[in-house]
Amino acid sequence: MVEDKENTANAGQEPVSKKAAKKQAKAAKKAELKAGNAAAAAADEAAGDNAADHAAARYGLSEMIQSKDKRSEREFVLLPELNAQIGKGLFWVRGRVHTSRAKGKQCFLILRQQSSTVQCILAVGDIISKEMVKFAGNIPKESIIDIQAKAVAVPNKIESCTEQSLELFVEQIFVISQAKAQLPLQIEDASRPENADDAEGLNIRVNQDTRLDNRVLDLRTPANQAIFRLEAGVCRLFRDILSDKGFTEIHTPKIISAASEGGANVFTVSYFKDSAYLAQSPQLYKQMAIAADFDKVYTVGAVFRAEDSNTHRHLTEFVGLDLEMAFKYHYHEVLHTIGNTFTAIFKGLRDKYSREIEAVGQQYKVEPFKFLEPPLILNFADGVAMLREAGIETGDEEDLSTPNEKLLGRLVKAKYDTDFYILDKFPLAIRPFYTMPDPNNPMYSNSYDMFMRGEEILSGAQRIHVPEYLIERAKHHGIDTTKIAAYIESFRYGCPPHAGGGIGMERVVMLYLGLDNIRKTSMFPRDPKRLTP
Amino acid sequence: MVEDKENTANAGQEPVSKKAAKKQAKAAKKAELKAGNAAAAAADEAAGDNAADHAAARYGLSEMIQSKDKRSEREFVLLPELNAQIGKGLFWVRGRVHTSRAKGKQCFLILRQQSSTVQCILAVGDIISKEMVKFAGNIPKESIIDIQAKAVAVPNKIESCTEQSLELFVEQIFVISQAKAQLPLQIEDASRPENADDAEGLNIRVNQDTRLDNRVLDLRTPANQAIFRLEAGVCRLFRDILSDKGFTEIHTPKIISAASEGGANVFTVSYFKDSAYLAQSPQLYKQMAIAADFDKVYTVGAVFRAEDSNTHRHLTEFVGLDLEMAFKYHYHEVLHTIGNTFTAIFKGLRDKYSREIEAVGQQYKVEPFKFLEPPLILNFADGVAMLREAGIETGDEEDLSTPNEKLLGRLVKAKYDTDFYILDKFPLAIRPFYTMPDPNNPMYSNSYDMFMRGEEILSGAQRIHVPEYLIERAKHHGIDTTKIAAYIESFRYGCPPHAGGGIGMERVVMLYLGLDNIRKTSMFPRDPKRLTP
Repeated sequence: MVEDKENTANAGQEPVSKKAAKKQAKAAKKAELKAGNAAAAAADEAAGDNAADHAAARYGLSEMIQSKDKRSEREFVLLPELNAQIGKGLFWVRGRVHTSRAKGKQCFLILRQQSSTVQCILAVGDIISKEMVKFAGNIPKESIIDIQAKAVAVPNKIESCTEQSLELFVEQIFVISQAKAQLPLQIEDASRPENADDAEGLNIRVNQDTRLDNRVLDLRTPANQAIFRLEAGVCRLFRDILSDKGFTEIHTPKIISAASEGGANVFTVSYFKDSAYLAQSPQLYKQMAIAADFDKVYTVGAVFRAEDSNTHRHLTEFVGLDLEMAFKYHYHEVLHTIGNTFTAIFKGLRDKYSREIEAVGQQYKVEPFKFLEPPLILNFADGVAMLREAGIETGDEEDLSTPNEKLLGRLVKAKYDTDFYILDKFPLAIRPFYTMPDPNNPMYSNSYDMFMRGEEILSGAQRIHVPEYLIERAKHHGIDTTKIAAYIESFRYGCPPHAGGGIGMERVVMLYLGLDNIRKTSMFPRDPKRLTP
Repeated sequence: MVEDKENTANAGQEPVSKKAAKKQAKAAKKAELKAGNAAAAAADEAAGDNAADHAAARYGLSEMIQSKDKRSEREFVLLPELNAQIGKGLFWVRGRVHTSRAKGKQCFLILRQQSSTVQCILAVGDIISKEMVKFAGNIPKESIIDIQAKAVAVPNKIESCTEQSLELFVEQIFVISQAKAQLPLQIEDASRPENADDAEGLNIRVNQDTRLDNRVLDLRTPANQAIFRLEAGVCRLFRDILSDKGFTEIHTPKIISAASEGGANVFTVSYFKDSAYLAQSPQLYKQMAIAADFDKVYTVGAVFRAEDSNTHRHLTEFVGLDLEMAFKYHYHEVLHTIGNTFTAIFKGLRDKYSREIEAVGQQYKVEPFKFLEPPLILNFADGVAMLREAGIETGDEEDLSTPNEKLLGRLVKAKYDTDFYILDKFPLAIRPFYTMPDPNNPMYSNSYDMFMRGEEILSGAQRIHVPEYLIERAKHHGIDTTKIAAYIESFRYGCPPHAGGGIGMERVVMLYLGLDNIRKTSMFPRDPKRLTP
C-alpha cells in the first residue's frame, strides 16, 4: 500500500526501495553531522533510521548538488506562475524557507523566491508521516529546499504571502542548502516597514552596519531585491536612451598615470615599479573620444574619490554614468540632451518599474518622484535670488552649500512642483579650469548642475576645446601646465566644441526613491570606514 | 552686385557688412597668430584685409565657439544623407579636412565625418575669390570646418570617397577648430591596408606605439571607428541577451580589502591609512549576489591583473563581461546558457555590424568568424586526445600551453569548421580551490574554458556552494582559510548551486575580427609599460 503511493509520488525522484531510502538517510545524516545541525539530525534519526516511517524517502537532506545527473525531466514552477497549476497535479518548486512552524500534525511553511512568498502545508496522513512534519518544522530559516506539491485554491486571501489565492500541499521536501540555525539578522526584521508600529512595541530594526556586514542576508529583503533591480533599470535606460540618440559606449581606463585635478582626493596605486592613480572621472578620456570623432559617447564604470567624507551621500567608489557630446554652436544642445535623457529615465522607471517602486514603498516612505517635461532650467543667479528671498545670505559667486542646495530644492518644488531641475550658468570662479567661461558675462560659465530632490546628481559643462585658451585658464588657476600637457595636446589636432557631464548612479537611485542613505543603493558600498564585504 | 550675392549666401550666417567682415578678419588673424599657423595667416592677410576680395565674408577662421548664440536656424546635413540634398540648394556640413589641394583656380578638398568622406570643390568665380581658394587649400589636415555648399551629382563614381555619386560645391568655408600643421601621424598612413602594395614601394606604416601615443588621431581611422563601435555592440548584445534571459545587472566594488586568490598579480592601493587591492575579478561579489537571491546576474566592468606579461593578449586592466547563475541540478544548465549567449552575440554582430566588420576588413585581413549552433562542446580529455593524435606530448592533468591551445583551435577548426568551441571538464588539479570536482571522476572538475580562434576568452566553473567542502578544498590547496573567512561565510545562510564565468571583452573583439593584438581593441590600453594616454 505504502509502496504504491511512494512509487507514484516519486516518479523521477529519489530511489524508493527501503534499502535506497536507508542509504539516503545515512548519507543525509552524515551531511547533517557535518553541518552540525542538531535539530535536523534529531529529526533524521527519528525518520530515516526508522523503517516504520512510511514517508522516509520523501524528505531529508539532499546530497550536495555536484552535477551528478541532469534530472531534466523535473519541471520547476516559479511562484508568480503558481496560479496556472491549481488543480493540475504535482510539480516542483525550489525556494527558501522563509518561516516554518510545526504544530501537532501539521507544518505551515512559508516558501520564498526572491520577493514572492507562498504558504505550504504538510499534514500527517497517508503520504506524510509525523516525522516528516517534524523534519519540515525544524528546517532552519533561509535554507534552500525543493518541494514537490499540489496547488490548491483557498477561499480567503492569505495576507501573509504575496501569492494570496492558493497554498501548496507538499508531498516531498528536500533540503538543498541548509542555512545556519542562528542568523545574524532576521529577514523579517530587516524588511520591517520603517514607520510601522510594532504590535508588541519592540520596534525591532536592523542597523545599517549589521545589514552591510551581512549583506548576503540583507539583500534578500523585498525592498533590496527591488532597489537593485531598479538600479539595473536606471543603467539600462541610460544606455538605451543614449544609444537611440546615436551615442557610442566607450570604456575608459581606471588606472591613470597622473592625478586629473591637482592630485587631491586621489587614490594611489603601486604599478609595478611605479606609482599610478585611480581615475576620479573618465572626463579626459571622454573628451579624447570626442576629439577622436566618436561625436557622442557614454561610459558606465567605477569612479574613485579618496575623500574622507562620512556623509549620507558620499562613497569612495561609485558607478559613474558619464556622457560627452560634440555640439554645433551652443552647449544647450547638450544640456537639453541630458535633460531629456533624465526625463526619459524617469518615465521609464515610472512605467516599467512600478512593481519595484511599490516594493520599496512597502518598507520605506517613498514619495512619488515629480518631474516636468521638458525639465525646468533655472540660472544660478535665479537660484541665488530665490534663496535670498527666503532670507538666506549668499554671495553671487559663492557655491551652494549643502543646506542651501536642499533649501533651494524645496523652494523649487514649492514653486514649480518638480523634484528634478537644472541649474545653469554657475559662477566661473567655482568651476574647474577647463570650464568654458560665459561669453556674455565673465562672472559666469557655460556649466550646469542637475538636482533630484534638492541634491546634486550631475555636474557638467562646456569644456574648453582650444589648447591656447585652456593653457591660459589653467595658468589662471595656478595649475602647472606641464603636468597636463597630454590633456592639452589632445585638442591640438582639431576638436569640435563639446560638453558633457557625470552622473552618480547610486545617488540617482537613492534620490529617485527618496531614500536617506547612499549605502542603501550601493550593493557593496565603499566608504572611508568600510572595505568589506 | 557682390553685396547682393553675399546677402544671399549669408542668410543666417556671419555678418555681411564690410565693417563686420573686417572685424571678423581681425579676430581671425589674432586667432591665427595665436595658433601660430603661418600659412593660414598669410592667406588671411591676402583675404580679410583686402577689401577687393569679394568673397572676404565667406571664409576665414571662425571665432572660438563659446556658445554665444544658438544659430538654431542653421541645418546641418550628415554625409550619408547627402544624396537627398542633390539639386536642393544650399546647406551646411561640419567635418574634418581629410585632404585639401589648391591648384590654380580650384581647390579640391575631401571632407571627412567619422568614416564617411565626400569631395568638395571651390572654383574661382562670382562667389569664390582666388584668395578663398588659397585659404581653403591651406587649411591644415584634420581641422574641423563648416562649409555651406550645394550637392551635385557626378557622372562617374568618385573612387577616393565613400560618398561616390556626388560632390559638394562650396560657397562658404570657416575653420571651427584648426589642427596643427604637423601631425605626428597621417590618417592615410594609419588607415593603409596591411597587405596593400604601395605603388611607390614605400610601404609606409604607423607603428603601434606611435599610434597609441597619439591615440586621438589614430582612433580616427575607419578601421578604429568600426572596431570601437563593434566593441560597443558586443557589450550591448551581451547585456541585452542576458537581460532577456532574466539576468539582473549588478555592480561590484573594484577596491577590495583582501586579495582574492592568494595575493599574486594584484595591484595594491593606499586606502586612507590602510592598504587595499584592486579586484582581479568580480567573482566573489557575483557569488554573493547569487547567495542573496538575485538568481542570475551579470556585470560589465574593469578588471585588474598585475601580471608583468608583455604579450599580444594581456592587459593589466581590461573590461570583464562576467556572469553567474544559480542552477537546479547540473552546471550544464549554465554552460549552455553561456554557449547560447555567445552564439547570439556572434549572430548579432554578423547581422547588425556588417558595415563595421567590412570597414575593419578594408585595413586588416578579417576572415569571417565561423560558429556552430548549438556550439561545439568537447571534453578536455578529447582535446588532449586530438593533440596527441597530432603528435603532441601532453599529460592528462597538464594545462594547455598557449601553443597547444592554438594548435587545438586549428585542429577543431579543421575537423568541425568552427572558430568557437567549449572545452569542458578540466583537470581538477589545474583549477582554483573553489571549483567543484567532477562527482564521477575525481581527476576532473565541473569547469570549462571557451575559445575563439584557438584562444581562451572565458574561464568558468561550477563553484563549491557548501562551506564545509569549500574549507576542505581550500586546505587541500594550502590556502589559509582565515583569510577567506568572509568568502566562506557567504555560503552559510543557504546558497543554491551555481556556476558562471568571466569573459575578456577586448579579447572577444580581437578574436572575432581576427586581429593580432589586444591593444587594437582597447581604446586606451594599459600594459606593464603603458599607462598613457
